[in-house]
Amino acid sequence: MVNLRDEALQLHKGNQGKLAVQSKVPVRNTKDLSLAYSPGVAEPCIEIYERRDLVYDYTMKGNMVAVVSDGTAVLGLGNIGPEAALPVMEGKSVLFKTFAGVDSFPICLATNDVDEIVRTVKLMEPTFGGINLEDIAAPNCFIIEERLKNETNIPVFHDDQHGTAIVTVAGLINALKLVGKLFSEIKVVANGAGAAGIAIIKLLHSFGVRDIIMCDSRGAIFEGRTYRMNAVKEEVAKITNRDKLEGKLDAIVAGADVFIGVSVGGALTKEMVAKMNDDAIIFAMANPNPEITPADAKEAGVKVIGTGRSDYPNQVNNVLAFPGIFRGALDVRATKINEKMKVAAAEAIASLISEAELHDDYVIPAPFDPRVAPIVAASVAKAAMETGVARLEVDPEIVAERTRKLTSQ
Amino acid sequence: MVNLRDEALQLHKGNQGKLAVQSKVPVRNTKDLSLAYSPGVAEPCIEIYERRDLVYDYTMKGNMVAVVSDGTAVLGLGNIGPEAALPVMEGKSVLFKTFAGVDSFPICLATNDVDEIVRTVKLMEPTFGGINLEDIAAPNCFIIEERLKNETNIPVFHDDQHGTAIVTVAGLINALKLVGKLFSEIKVVANGAGAAGIAIIKLLHSFGVRDIIMCDSRGAIFEGRTYRMNAVKEEVAKITNRDKLEGKLDAIVAGADVFIGVSVGGALTKEMVAKMNDDAIIFAMANPNPEITPADAKEAGVKVIGTGRSDYPNQVNNVLAFPGIFRGALDVRATKINEKMKVAAAEAIASLISEAELHDDYVIPAPFDPRVAPIVAASVAKAAMETGVARLEVDPEIVAERTRKLTSQ
Repeated sequence: MVNLRDEALQLHKGNQGKLAVQSKVPVRNTKDLSLAYSPGVAEPCIEIYERRDLVYDYTMKGNMVAVVSDGTAVLGLGNIGPEAALPVMEGKSVLFKTFAGVDSFPICLATNDVDEIVRTVKLMEPTFGGINLEDIAAPNCFIIEERLKNETNIPVFHDDQHGTAIVTVAGLINALKLVGKLFSEIKVVANGAGAAGIAIIKLLHSFGVRDIIMCDSRGAIFEGRTYRMNAVKEEVAKITNRDKLEGKLDAIVAGADVFIGVSVGGALTKEMVAKMNDDAIIFAMANPNPEITPADAKEAGVKVIGTGRSDYPNQVNNVLAFPGIFRGALDVRATKINEKMKVAAAEAIASLISEAELHDDYVIPAPFDPRVAPIVAASVAKAAMETGVARLEVDPEIVAERTRKLTSQ
Repeated sequence: MVNLRDEALQLHKGNQGKLAVQSKVPVRNTKDLSLAYSPGVAEPCIEIYERRDLVYDYTMKGNMVAVVSDGTAVLGLGNIGPEAALPVMEGKSVLFKTFAGVDSFPICLATNDVDEIVRTVKLMEPTFGGINLEDIAAPNCFIIEERLKNETNIPVFHDDQHGTAIVTVAGLINALKLVGKLFSEIKVVANGAGAAGIAIIKLLHSFGVRDIIMCDSRGAIFEGRTYRMNAVKEEVAKITNRDKLEGKLDAIVAGADVFIGVSVGGALTKEMVAKMNDDAIIFAMANPNPEITPADAKEAGVKVIGTGRSDYPNQVNNVLAFPGIFRGALDVRATKINEKMKVAAAEAIASLISEAELHDDYVIPAPFDPRVAPIVAASVAKAAMETGVARLEVDPEIVAERTRKLTSQ
């Protein structure tokens, strides 16, 4: 029997990678050539030269996302460099296409310098309708995203942060329904002050959560902490831990309703879980081994547990979010992916599970649920139009229908 | 009846551009996802991290060319900017794919700065197996190509220069056979000191031509000329016009065997042609109107005339060269496209017309001749191996066969 390793290597080698380009127009004869290339191609060139935003009508730009990485924080592998990161970025592009008909292209950059990465992406802006940042280490990922948001005119999205946050919160919306608690009354402890953790607490904030404490390996982060702080943790400290509690995770987690793990396998013990509030909810997303296994969590009395793994229930899989988010953003030519669009995406994902279907092991839809991308795209497009970042008005139902068509091919 | 303009605009708008990405692997279920993406994708990442050149085995890099432009010299339209250039670059990618199965991707850059363009392309090197520079104005195009050749490890090719040169020289090889003259004994006059003109005289030099004079709008370029010179013309002056002749085109062209026009429509009159040597050969490639029409040239006694147009015989169309050249270079993982590879490409194109078929109106194969890309790819691969710039040894016949397969799909 072939194991996963051999099979994965064979898949990549046998196809010389996973991504190809494809012509959308036939070139079989002189006539075709004169339309797709010289002299006919001069016509759309002239149109765009006279009115630059027609580039969205006449070129691939409006459906083309750059998947940009410097290879510094790839999966669980760390800083493996831009060449070794390429299989992941190609995979991302495969998912964009498969799940939402979004064309995207991997750009792996041979630099870790923030200014150079920002400058390079800005110079490529004419070609792309959106930027998906991927597997860039903190804190550079925060700075690069912030700067590109301000300095470009197209949506910029760091999926490791926001994709994970959106799907986690989608699961939490449904888990809270199950246990009959409200966002405004829960206590949340997040373990791991990386890119995803910080995006999750920000999104929880948008959902009205007021009692959040974030821990890193040194324990609770609080305003005024003097050790192991950085700009991002300072910002976290301002919006969390209002009582400025100090202490290690095992003390902090006592009385929590929700534990969010974006740290390391085994970080949460059964003893810690026992100290949590009744009907505790856990999203333990360390890869490949979660902070606590579902079996241990359940034994310790947890009501709902989600992880990053496909072989456990309630998988937090970013593929539920990023394809539909970009589909919706591109379809209304959004200039940003703002907080309201992220909230809309999380609510859309959660809404797919009816109250009748909802149970402990089903708070998040399955990655291959074909209803996900259309509803996410439509909701994100709607939120973009409502918040004034859309350059096109499109009926959300048309966005959903188009997404269904693109993904059923 | 629909005219070309409307039809071209409709083609581009109806498809939202001409290029899409395509997944080479299916993602229909959790198993597929675990191979193409997490966790299976980590395996090729680790392999490449441990031995970087395995990026050619496990990713798209080995078949992926960047089509890079700053939009400063697009077709006959001039400096229209990177957005307006995008339809041309997409078209180029369509031709790469259609004619030789080469995947390529347009990168239109929002800068005209040489250092920035060079730096940006170098930073993207991990993703690409080759660089095709396109529609970049002189003299920047020369500097950028030269620097990228020295500073990257992948083939760099400015098609506006070398593609045109290769196809012109291919036509000339056959035209000389028809008139029974040798490269070493002909007098060539080239009109137009732009990118293509200079590449043509360099390639003619490699074919043994010793008597060449290049003219610009001020007449013959010669060593010591003090007006309207630049670095490139100084270099031209060194290798041409050994007698340092001065004068306008109409004086210089007297006694020439071959006229190469890469200048402006109508630059060559019947009176000038009448002063040329017997059995004169003309390649008049100004677009859309050649330096002289075939009808006028024939009336004035010319033996063979080629132009850039598809509605006249002997079309000098770059599509005969660049797809097969990159196909061959990629298949042996060449680090350069050197002079010998360009010579091999020109000879391969010329060789497709047998002595029996050869006549005044057929010295260059048709753009859709399916034999072209396979023979060019095989010949270029062979030349790369012979000159030590290939990182892989592959039987040229296998390269040809693979090209045939890729283009018959």
